[in-house]
Amino acid sequence: MNSRRGLMLVICAPSGTGKSTLTKRLRKEFPRISFSISYTTRKPRDGERQGIDYHFVNRDEFNTLIEEGFFAEWAEVHGNFYGTPKDAVLELLDEGQDVLFDIDVQGAAQLRESMQQGCYVFLFPPSLAALRQRLEARNTDDESIIERRLNNAPGEVEEANKFDYWIVNDDLDSAYRLLKSVYLAEGTRPSYLPQLPDRILHHKKI
Amino acid sequence: MNSRRGLMLVICAPSGTGKSTLTKRLRKEFPRISFSISYTTRKPRDGERQGIDYHFVNRDEFNTLIEEGFFAEWAEVHGNFYGTPKDAVLELLDEGQDVLFDIDVQGAAQLRESMQQGCYVFLFPPSLAALRQRLEARNTDDESIIERRLNNAPGEVEEANKFDYWIVNDDLDSAYRLLKSVYLAEGTRPSYLPQLPDRILHHKKI
Repeated sequence: MNSRRGLMLVICAPSGTGKSTLTKRLRKEFPRISFSISYTTRKPRDGERQGIDYHFVNRDEFNTLIEEGFFAEWAEVHGNFYGTPKDAVLELLDEGQDVLFDIDVQGAAQLRESMQQGCYVFLFPPSLAALRQRLEARNTDDESIIERRLNNAPGEVEEANKFDYWIVNDDLDSAYRLLKSVYLAEGTRPSYLPQLPDRILHHKKI
Repeated sequence: MNSRRGLMLVICAPSGTGKSTLTKRLRKEFPRISFSISYTTRKPRDGERQGIDYHFVNRDEFNTLIEEGFFAEWAEVHGNFYGTPKDAVLELLDEGQDVLFDIDVQGAAQLRESMQQGCYVFLFPPSLAALRQRLEARNTDDESIIERRLNNAPGEVEEANKFDYWIVNDDLDSAYRLLKSVYLAEGTRPSYLPQLPDRILHHKKI
């Protein structure tokens, strides 16, 4: 029995801002952080394992799950469906597991609505010009995808007002220090430590 | 002109919890953090300078300031009055200066009410037994003062529910890491960075 409730750490950023690098580093320093395993209708890629990388389901099954209110959030991306199972996340949180979500702004809005908890971090690129440079330097996307991502960025930045914390990824180490601070600080909020004052006053070991 | 608003960091703890050690360490690592200079009716001690350590005023002057709503909080301690000047704090915050308050729970409640902003941290001793050990080991207070402090502690812990963050000072380094995280994380909240999205979208240097 863990004496601390788990927290949902939800991180959003325009594509190319450096979100994956930062979340990987956070998970490396804090292996106790879980990811939830999504459901998807897309076909498994080589090496992907059922129930470990994703829960692979067909379109009918996915639709039934939507109707049953099974998902904390779901979305269609390039014709494939992806969804986060609500009860599985709640179970992790009850066990005191922290759960990380690397998600788009629409997904974050759905999570906030359906979970009614969590810490929502928006990661900014230093500027749109810097974002273009990074997307081009990455050299993994063709020009039309880069243009689509750059066109999406201002709309995503407008959504930043709904987030709890804002971090600018100007310098990777500074941004990481802030992300880690948000994660650690958030875990000291009273809502995650409901038994603490009682424990201090009555010397009970929990 | 600073692009970030200053934040009020308010720290409370039962006497003997280690608050002074932690706040000193925070100010050493972040010299940009200010303390507000209090007004007091007590007589200056050797070496204390008017307007630097305190603003020393007489009892009539202090009463007039209370009536004028000059104080963000004030209290009588052992027959002497102490008060925090509201406008001076607001000025520091407008300039982007962070301001630290090392204060008792009643003072924190007054600050929350009068300032309508800030980040309120409650620091817990690991247990009341540990608190007694520390107060006795400190060897600066006689037994009656230690007893009074121990008698006050449960009431102070009950007030912890009104705070935003809870840190247990079980181990000084861990507690410091959390306090520093709270300070850094809090500074990334949107309310302190009102111009950020605009700056990102329009490439303006502020």
